[in-house]
Amino acid sequence: MSQDVGQKATITTPSEREIRIERVFDAPRERVFAAHIDPELIPQWWGPREMETVVEEMDATTGGAWRFLTTQPDGRKIVFRGYYREVTAPERIVQTFEWDGMPGYVSVETATFEDLGDGRTKITNVSVFHTTEERDGMLESGMERGLNETYARLDELLAGQAG
Amino acid sequence: MSQDVGQKATITTPSEREIRIERVFDAPRERVFAAHIDPELIPQWWGPREMETVVEEMDATTGGAWRFLTTQPDGRKIVFRGYYREVTAPERIVQTFEWDGMPGYVSVETATFEDLGDGRTKITNVSVFHTTEERDGMLESGMERGLNETYARLDELLAGQAG
Repeated sequence: MSQDVGQKATITTPSEREIRIERVFDAPRERVFAAHIDPELIPQWWGPREMETVVEEMDATTGGAWRFLTTQPDGRKIVFRGYYREVTAPERIVQTFEWDGMPGYVSVETATFEDLGDGRTKITNVSVFHTTEERDGMLESGMERGLNETYARLDELLAGQAG
Repeated sequence: MSQDVGQKATITTPSEREIRIERVFDAPRERVFAAHIDPELIPQWWGPREMETVVEEMDATTGGAWRFLTTQPDGRKIVFRGYYREVTAPERIVQTFEWDGMPGYVSVETATFEDLGDGRTKITNVSVFHTTEERDGMLESGMERGLNETYARLDELLAGQAG
């Protein structure tokens, strides 16, 4: 990919079954949060650039489900999905994450949206896996490139909204 | 309940997010294992006595899904479901477990079937939860009584097969 991925997220492994991601966005917290729960906005930023995303289901409330149908560059269809365990605007989203290629492998992602007080917002996203092997599988899946590209797309969406 | 629950399972918490269950059955390993993967047999033993269980889906192969519709004594319907992460006859079943009352709360159960060499079989079932709170929620849900009653029903099924 020749696309600029812009600012890189900080990815760490604070425990043997966690991945922690930190990234700052140059937009107010309400707008960063809204981009995560608005089904109209998801296709504009969610996933790497070459992947198309269709929101099939998205009930961004506690107990609700989400289900995104993606089309890969080679035409393959992959479903990502999960449930919202907690949605507390504009501070916190706790959701499960799984994909149809590995049924029964489920992580829990806790995203915290922090108002930095200068118009910027920091997202801290901690993913918890049942086992270290599952965590390592995610790390080795190319998630870092995909994540940085996803967040670069989110930067662009937020910048466009500001204009 | 005045029902005899028979032999009690040994329940321990080997780590902060695990529950370990051990129980010996007076039947050969192949038959104990078969009772776990045969959709015809599940309604005869799965769950407490007062609950009716209908197998809506059960593809007991690696990657397959299971889905049991239960009816409680008060008429409430509750769905339990998950995926088989591994089915290796007659030794091991790894499956996820969730119920529709708490979407997004998923545990992974690894059941190991050990041939004790004297016609008996020991099941060791380790459940892993994403958090300690989820683990403790399960322990406080009345699972011990339900488990012992379930296993007493399985004893009866296995004894009936032997006759």
